[in-house]
Amino acid sequence: MMKELPLSKVYQLLEPGPVVLLTTAHKGRANVMAMSWHMMVEFEPPLVACVVSNAGHSFAALRATRECVIAIPALGLAPQVVQVGNSSGRDINKFQAFGLTPVPALRVTPPLVAECFANLECKVADTRLVNKYNLFVLEVLKAWTDPTQKSPKTIHHHGYGRFVVDGETITLKSKMR
Amino acid sequence: MMKELPLSKVYQLLEPGPVVLLTTAHKGRANVMAMSWHMMVEFEPPLVACVVSNAGHSFAALRATRECVIAIPALGLAPQVVQVGNSSGRDINKFQAFGLTPVPALRVTPPLVAECFANLECKVADTRLVNKYNLFVLEVLKAWTDPTQKSPKTIHHHGYGRFVVDGETITLKSKMR
Repeated sequence: MMKELPLSKVYQLLEPGPVVLLTTAHKGRANVMAMSWHMMVEFEPPLVACVVSNAGHSFAALRATRECVIAIPALGLAPQVVQVGNSSGRDINKFQAFGLTPVPALRVTPPLVAECFANLECKVADTRLVNKYNLFVLEVLKAWTDPTQKSPKTIHHHGYGRFVVDGETITLKSKMR
Repeated sequence: MMKELPLSKVYQLLEPGPVVLLTTAHKGRANVMAMSWHMMVEFEPPLVACVVSNAGHSFAALRATRECVIAIPALGLAPQVVQVGNSSGRDINKFQAFGLTPVPALRVTPPLVAECFANLECKVADTRLVNKYNLFVLEVLKAWTDPTQKSPKTIHHHGYGRFVVDGETITLKSKMR
């Protein structure tokens, strides 16, 4: 179940630095990878920068098709996230292998991930830093959240399978958007 | 108190997406801003991308001097982080105003922040995306951590003064660095 999220709120999902999944579709096959190297670049339309290793299967797909989906998993999906990160789309269908459900997106060919609490449909907006750094700038075209997943806790990678889970929330008086 | 951190471990500090401080020095004056739009780009030498608004005082300093320090505050500094984010170096000396102690860095002119548990001395490595996106690629030249701050909890910005604090740590068997 997915409800549309206003594009102006997308940054609130990515700015805290969660581990995300990135789906691509190339030559009729969808793939999914795990990613922590991403950041917001602009509020609206939301621009996101990310680094996708050119050693992986997703890189060629993203470069060729210029489309992807960023899907944000909550804590319960941590085991699948690690399995996704430890395997290659060259060898297996990771959706099938790890019980992730691809759902058609509205604006792009790569699928949403049904189990994730948020999904961002993206197109590549800038490739100037791809050759040197594998760094893509993406524009988020459409954003979805799953209203049945209340207050999802995200996970943050500290290296070698160590993840810190969201803890308490504090609110301080701030003018910062 | 600062102990050198091997550059190969720098990514473990930034990959989880904490709010950080960024110091600059320009025309004999140091300044500090709050920043959440950053990501790792390469493990070693560590490259970091970040977006620094061209509406702020730090942008001109970073562009002109090509040097900065990324300082990572733990939870206890959250009030100061918000104060730093809510004010401009045009108007005040934020170090003095908010009780942050500048400490000379080894390789760059901008200061470390004594109260932060980690400090990364950086030079600008790529400016190709500065004009369009305010996006700088930095190289970390030297990294320091404060060994007296044990297991620091970082804060993650969700917008409008709402921060999620690091919670529990989980470890899953992973081949991912």
